[in-house]
Amino acid sequence: MALTFLSMEGNKFVDQFLKIRNSKFFNTLVISVIIASALYAGVASYDIPSQYVYLLEIFDYTITIFFTIEILIRMIAERSLIKFFKGGWNVFDFLIVTISLIPVGGAESVFVARLLRIVRVLRIITVIPAFRHIIEALIKTIPRVGFIALLMFIFIYIWAAVGTLFFEEADPDHWADIGVAMLTLVQVATYDDWAMILGLVIEDHPLAWFYFVTFIIVNAVVLLNMVIGVIVDVMTSETRDNFIPDEEK
Amino acid sequence: MALTFLSMEGNKFVDQFLKIRNSKFFNTLVISVIIASALYAGVASYDIPSQYVYLLEIFDYTITIFFTIEILIRMIAERSLIKFFKGGWNVFDFLIVTISLIPVGGAESVFVARLLRIVRVLRIITVIPAFRHIIEALIKTIPRVGFIALLMFIFIYIWAAVGTLFFEEADPDHWADIGVAMLTLVQVATYDDWAMILGLVIEDHPLAWFYFVTFIIVNAVVLLNMVIGVIVDVMTSETRDNFIPDEEK
Amino acid sequence: MALTFLSMEGNKFVDQFLKIRNSKFFNTLVISVIIASALYAGVASYDIPSQYVYLLEIFDYTITIFFTIEILIRMIAERSLIKFFKGGWNVFDFLIVTISLIPVGGAESVFVARLLRIVRVLRIITVIPAFRHIIEALIKTIPRVGFIALLMFIFIYIWAAVGTLFFEEADPDHWADIGVAMLTLVQVATYDDWAMILGLVIEDHPLAWFYFVTFIIVNAVVLLNMVIGVIVDVMTSETRDNFIPDEEK
Amino acid sequence: MALTFLSMEGNKFVDQFLKIRNSKFFNTLVISVIIASALYAGVASYDIPSQYVYLLEIFDYTITIFFTIEILIRMIAERSLIKFFKGGWNVFDFLIVTISLIPVGGAESVFVARLLRIVRVLRIITVIPAFRHIIEALIKTIPRVGFIALLMFIFIYIWAAVGTLFFEEADPDHWADIGVAMLTLVQVATYDDWAMILGLVIEDHPLAWFYFVTFIIVNAVVLLNMVIGVIVDVMTSETRDNFIPDEEK
Repeated sequence: MALTFLSMEGNKFVDQFLKIRNSKFFNTLVISVIIASALYAGVASYDIPSQYVYLLEIFDYTITIFFTIEILIRMIAERSLIKFFKGGWNVFDFLIVTISLIPVGGAESVFVARLLRIVRVLRIITVIPAFRHIIEALIKTIPRVGFIALLMFIFIYIWAAVGTLFFEEADPDHWADIGVAMLTLVQVATYDDWAMILGLVIEDHPLAWFYFVTFIIVNAVVLLNMVIGVIVDVMTSETRDNFIPDEEK
Repeated sequence: MALTFLSMEGNKFVDQFLKIRNSKFFNTLVISVIIASALYAGVASYDIPSQYVYLLEIFDYTITIFFTIEILIRMIAERSLIKFFKGGWNVFDFLIVTISLIPVGGAESVFVARLLRIVRVLRIITVIPAFRHIIEALIKTIPRVGFIALLMFIFIYIWAAVGTLFFEEADPDHWADIGVAMLTLVQVATYDDWAMILGLVIEDHPLAWFYFVTFIIVNAVVLLNMVIGVIVDVMTSETRDNFIPDEEK
Repeated sequence: MALTFLSMEGNKFVDQFLKIRNSKFFNTLVISVIIASALYAGVASYDIPSQYVYLLEIFDYTITIFFTIEILIRMIAERSLIKFFKGGWNVFDFLIVTISLIPVGGAESVFVARLLRIVRVLRIITVIPAFRHIIEALIKTIPRVGFIALLMFIFIYIWAAVGTLFFEEADPDHWADIGVAMLTLVQVATYDDWAMILGLVIEDHPLAWFYFVTFIIVNAVVLLNMVIGVIVDVMTSETRDNFIPDEEK
Repeated sequence: MALTFLSMEGNKFVDQFLKIRNSKFFNTLVISVIIASALYAGVASYDIPSQYVYLLEIFDYTITIFFTIEILIRMIAERSLIKFFKGGWNVFDFLIVTISLIPVGGAESVFVARLLRIVRVLRIITVIPAFRHIIEALIKTIPRVGFIALLMFIFIYIWAAVGTLFFEEADPDHWADIGVAMLTLVQVATYDDWAMILGLVIEDHPLAWFYFVTFIIVNAVVLLNMVIGVIVDVMTSETRDNFIPDEEK
């Protein structure tokens, strides 16, 4: 039924929805409601006097209903469900709204409800084009950064395996198994209290400093190359793009 | 009255002021007085023997009077008050000098007086062109860096909301409400003792490491892109500027 | 004997091996076995119930045998042992496999066996071309970064010598001899708890802050120049390469 | 007398010295002796058995005499004292050697002697051209980086003055006067335990987080601009230099 309805192209009723979706008022309203919902998610972290809880719940329902109506408007305005779901950001929005519509019951309902409210804040990325572009740029860097990140993961994995082998007895808190050791090495990679961790094992293993210093150097060198690699790549493609006429630039 | 006086263009009296303002001696004097006032603001943080307090107060009055005369000279030299206030740096100077002229009384007078003396040090930026250029360059990067900073703020906000939800019971000191949690996440973003904060909740929430590690990665990735984005932007505009003849370069 | 056998170029038997080596199935299998061996090296860090130890040992033997067969296939496929050993990565692989074949006995056998299993994980770099390229790129930066790293080492050495001279009595834990002092300065260079180390000596040496702040500034400046130097070098050579037709690009 | 002797250009005796100075053997010997003196400066930080102290002292005298002879050879080879002292690195070397020749006596003689031995290690920079070039490059960046560093100093100064004003009573250890406060802010700028310092004052001053977070942001932004500014400047001059034929490149 919905599909037949949506296929009525040129329909004045649908045109009306398109007009609403493209209006500045509608967009400002959506952004305002999302910011309100964000503030609400923040307020929920404070202890709220019981007399206001009821008020906040009404506010929550209003936001949920508003978001549902908004996404329906955008669906109808698109004229075709298939076309609507082809846009990655539309799918993202649809999932967030749908999830927040699922009724939650039982003991954990308050917890889940609060989590859903927080997830809803992510919609701010969809409605403001600048944020969408930043996220799209971040996603584009994944293949470039991916392999170096993977190599870094392998380095941490190997160092962690060696660490458990050597330091498990001397300091089981940081080197009990490969999972704990990897977390310890992430801590060392961020230079957070690494000298203290080294201090716990250096008495039993006087050469432990070599393990730590090589890890820090490899880590820093890989990071350095990562930064340079990405900068060079970005700047080269930037220069390349200058040869192609580009409307957006 | 002042306006009539200032409108007398070509007046020899005004020319005299212009000559003073542009003289090397006047500029060196102004810089010296600002440096003296900066040293004075620093000295005021030490315990000063009571016999010198009187001396310092006279010194303070002298600086205040000097600054007032100096800004009056610059106003007259500009010939028009409207022209004077069109310059952002002039407004900046005028505000600082005016604020320091307001008489402060009552219990908090010493405190406020000291604060005003510190604010006065900011005038060093106005009188040395190199500093003015650096600040102007910093202001120009705001629109470029702004949206990424805003996105980072949203990320911290969402993560903080999730953090209060999960960790509030286990570690109320760091996760009591969204305000405290955001401050905790700024701390984690600077890698300051983050492993200790993780250690406080990992027993109750064995998967807490995932929350921290993803935050650090997103934070680092966004920062990386921020740096690259700004560098690319700066260098592209730098290259573009080379096509335009430019006196200042 | 092996050499005669390998010299039979055009031999159908050798062609068969070449076909195996280049097949997608073979490569996928090798990668899978390496990942399995990596997981196994990780699992070995946990306490394993005794009934599974036997199983894991069989698994270990299987991997060792598989790696031996794999390297033999690659050797035969190359047709000439000399040609095989000319490839740096082949030597790397050969060494890892050979070392893991050495029978280990005595009290330390378990320890050494676990270490060998971890070393074996390094083979993941050889089999995935992207990793090989990253490592090759890292090796190429060594001459560029080398002298700056050496200069940094000399700076740390000189500062450490001065540190032992001044602070040895006040804080022997961090400044006992030049070895300990250098490790302390690596800690200061990573900004890890440096203020605490300064705090331990500042009472006896009120000017110690100068020693620390100059070290941090020199360290930061050298690091900054290192980054810029490498970026400029990489980008200049990148631009230079664009003049030469290049298949790989 | 020395001047007359040195003015005998074309003299065979002087030529001999020039030959020595330019010989590979002489340079290798000088580098070896400097490395030996560096190792000696390091060894001196350990507790040395009394029977070896005598040996080390002879070693020390030998190095001092060698350095004196070496600098005399270089002076004579240069033919003119004026020409010799025109080279900045020669003055640097001459000062180091002269200082180490000053006889030290009294209670502090051991301390000063050890310090001189460490200073002597700096000669490694003069004898290896690569190091000399890095230092020269570092010196060239001073005017570019200078003003930004100065501005950063002013920011720290102003923030420190405000800090002493607000936090002196709550935490005198970190905010007693402007000197202590500036050191505390250098610590905060390196992100070392800043959250702990904030924690000491946040109870009395609930808005202290604003003071710290703004300082960190301004600090990070200034640093970011510093890096970008220097990179852009280096790369622009790099590109400019390509138009000028250059032997050294």
